[in-house]
Amino acid sequence: MEVINVLHMNGGIGNASYANNSLVQEKVISMTRPILEEAVIDLYYNSTFPKKLCIADLGCSSGPNTLLAISGIMKTVDKIREAGGIQSPEFQVYLNDLPGNDFNSIFRALPQFQDRLKKQMGSGLGPCFFTGVPGSFYHRLFLSKTLHFVHSSYSLQWLSQVPKLEETNKGNIYMASTSPPSVLKAYHQQFQRDFTAFLNCRSEELVIGGRMVLTFLGRKSDDPSSKECCYIWELLSMALRDMVSQGLVEEKKLDEFNIPQYTPSPREVKEVVEKEGSFSIDRLEVSQVNWNVYENDGDYNVTQCMRAVAEPLLVDQFGQAMMDKIFQRYREIIADKISKETTHFYNVIVSVTKT
Amino acid sequence: MEVINVLHMNGGIGNASYANNSLVQEKVISMTRPILEEAVIDLYYNSTFPKKLCIADLGCSSGPNTLLAISGIMKTVDKIREAGGIQSPEFQVYLNDLPGNDFNSIFRALPQFQDRLKKQMGSGLGPCFFTGVPGSFYHRLFLSKTLHFVHSSYSLQWLSQVPKLEETNKGNIYMASTSPPSVLKAYHQQFQRDFTAFLNCRSEELVIGGRMVLTFLGRKSDDPSSKECCYIWELLSMALRDMVSQGLVEEKKLDEFNIPQYTPSPREVKEVVEKEGSFSIDRLEVSQVNWNVYENDGDYNVTQCMRAVAEPLLVDQFGQAMMDKIFQRYREIIADKISKETTHFYNVIVSVTKT
Repeated sequence: MEVINVLHMNGGIGNASYANNSLVQEKVISMTRPILEEAVIDLYYNSTFPKKLCIADLGCSSGPNTLLAISGIMKTVDKIREAGGIQSPEFQVYLNDLPGNDFNSIFRALPQFQDRLKKQMGSGLGPCFFTGVPGSFYHRLFLSKTLHFVHSSYSLQWLSQVPKLEETNKGNIYMASTSPPSVLKAYHQQFQRDFTAFLNCRSEELVIGGRMVLTFLGRKSDDPSSKECCYIWELLSMALRDMVSQGLVEEKKLDEFNIPQYTPSPREVKEVVEKEGSFSIDRLEVSQVNWNVYENDGDYNVTQCMRAVAEPLLVDQFGQAMMDKIFQRYREIIADKISKETTHFYNVIVSVTKT
Repeated sequence: MEVINVLHMNGGIGNASYANNSLVQEKVISMTRPILEEAVIDLYYNSTFPKKLCIADLGCSSGPNTLLAISGIMKTVDKIREAGGIQSPEFQVYLNDLPGNDFNSIFRALPQFQDRLKKQMGSGLGPCFFTGVPGSFYHRLFLSKTLHFVHSSYSLQWLSQVPKLEETNKGNIYMASTSPPSVLKAYHQQFQRDFTAFLNCRSEELVIGGRMVLTFLGRKSDDPSSKECCYIWELLSMALRDMVSQGLVEEKKLDEFNIPQYTPSPREVKEVVEKEGSFSIDRLEVSQVNWNVYENDGDYNVTQCMRAVAEPLLVDQFGQAMMDKIFQRYREIIADKISKETTHFYNVIVSVTKT
């Protein structure tokens, strides 16, 4: 399962565009497909076959990956329908992301996507209706009791805000082994609040028996400052500290800056789901991802992907003029690490049913 | 009722942006409000009060007018609810236009709009969910039997395509008194096909008892080449003929070019609704609109509005370089007419119920 790279971390925030790497996309699909398929099959065998199927992709971003999971879900439904000799449902697909997402480019690509879908799935496919839903998934987005299936990939690690910190996270920009315990706690509590709000909202919107498959960028370890999840940001803070020592960046600016992300462990995900109480857990998995999924130019590719994610966050704090310098240094640091050790990202995938 | 001007003709096609004239907007609302209100009130008194109210605006465009009708409908519902001491429904608002419409700018304006709505309507207002629906309203756009209310303003006069003509519409760009009868017939038949397709689709999507209020740019007369609807285009074809006579535009280019619009009479609207058979007509009205709704600069304003509508259509045929020249000449012609006579547009408004 060493297949996904950081390419997908920009699902929930900013307007960064995906790099179009079909190799990576295929691998992503091959990893999440079994879990998605299982959830769709369960949905269909544990309820009457709905005539109108409402699917939401939360944090859909805009790019070649946007409709990949959705088309996978639709194909699975179509297989079940065909095997059972049942009439196709009508599909209502909701594509959600923040209002700043580039919905125009999704919408302009839709006619071609729908044509391809029709060709692939044949004349038995029912009508498919695609809509864009702008807004934060930490708030209500849909009518109550209307959704059957929710998918979200590489978006839920984005917090609704940088947690309020009692102490300065000195020299760091994310949770790190040198972060004060109060910082780690504040991050964890922000995650708990945000993910609970997410579950509360979806609990209102899903029908009973409705399913969700959620993939977080996360960690295996229960240590929130584990290298598993924090190393990539640690290397960026190294680059920033270099800028400070060269007098290019004010130290105060660095100390004030933190990334609004939380990369949870499976246990932390489980705890919130159980405490919130509206969903039962069907599956909870971790998969490991080699940073260097590309055969060549790993440092370049990882840096580019991280830049797409991080630059919109960094630019306000450190200024556009610094961006090239920061990411040049970041790339050097990443290249050095990749040459010496094998580094990984971890994905936490949870599949749940609304009870 | 001399209140609306051509400002709104761009609802269904291209990406022309509305001129932001709040005076005109207020007048538009003051004209359609009674009919919209009546339809909403009827919907509520003739059915059980729906807990989830699905409203669609078809051909919403993007600009300051986009959410005006929707907020009017929501306010009427809120008044009824308040008067009856009933709990507010959840609102699902579908904003539809062609995929080329600028949905991004609508979505980015939504948070502010929603805040204002909450302030105006108070704490009793139920949750409101806004979605963008890209696609042609001459095709299915929504799940079957889900809509309660459909609104469309200044969009349905746009045909799905320029009708196929057996004879050349020589020297004209729209129906005109000098058009061959076969041209007038082809235009009318295209309107009948398109509007029938529209009604077929909405008939699938609306619940029984669901309502539609549709406003066309149209005419009072049964003569399809009546000056009432064709004069504004006739003046544009005059400007184009001037370009031809100056050798700036090829005659062939002008002869090949026609506007994909049909401005129906109330009788023609009624005929299609009755023949399609899924809707009963509650109201059918014509209102008259002075071209020169502005006190000053009428020629400039009318030309600007028409340019926003027509330029995206003209530019492919005649080239970007010609646009300034064409619209300069058009403005001169319009100024001349406005100074000599009072000219009008006509709106045909039909309010129907799904039976």
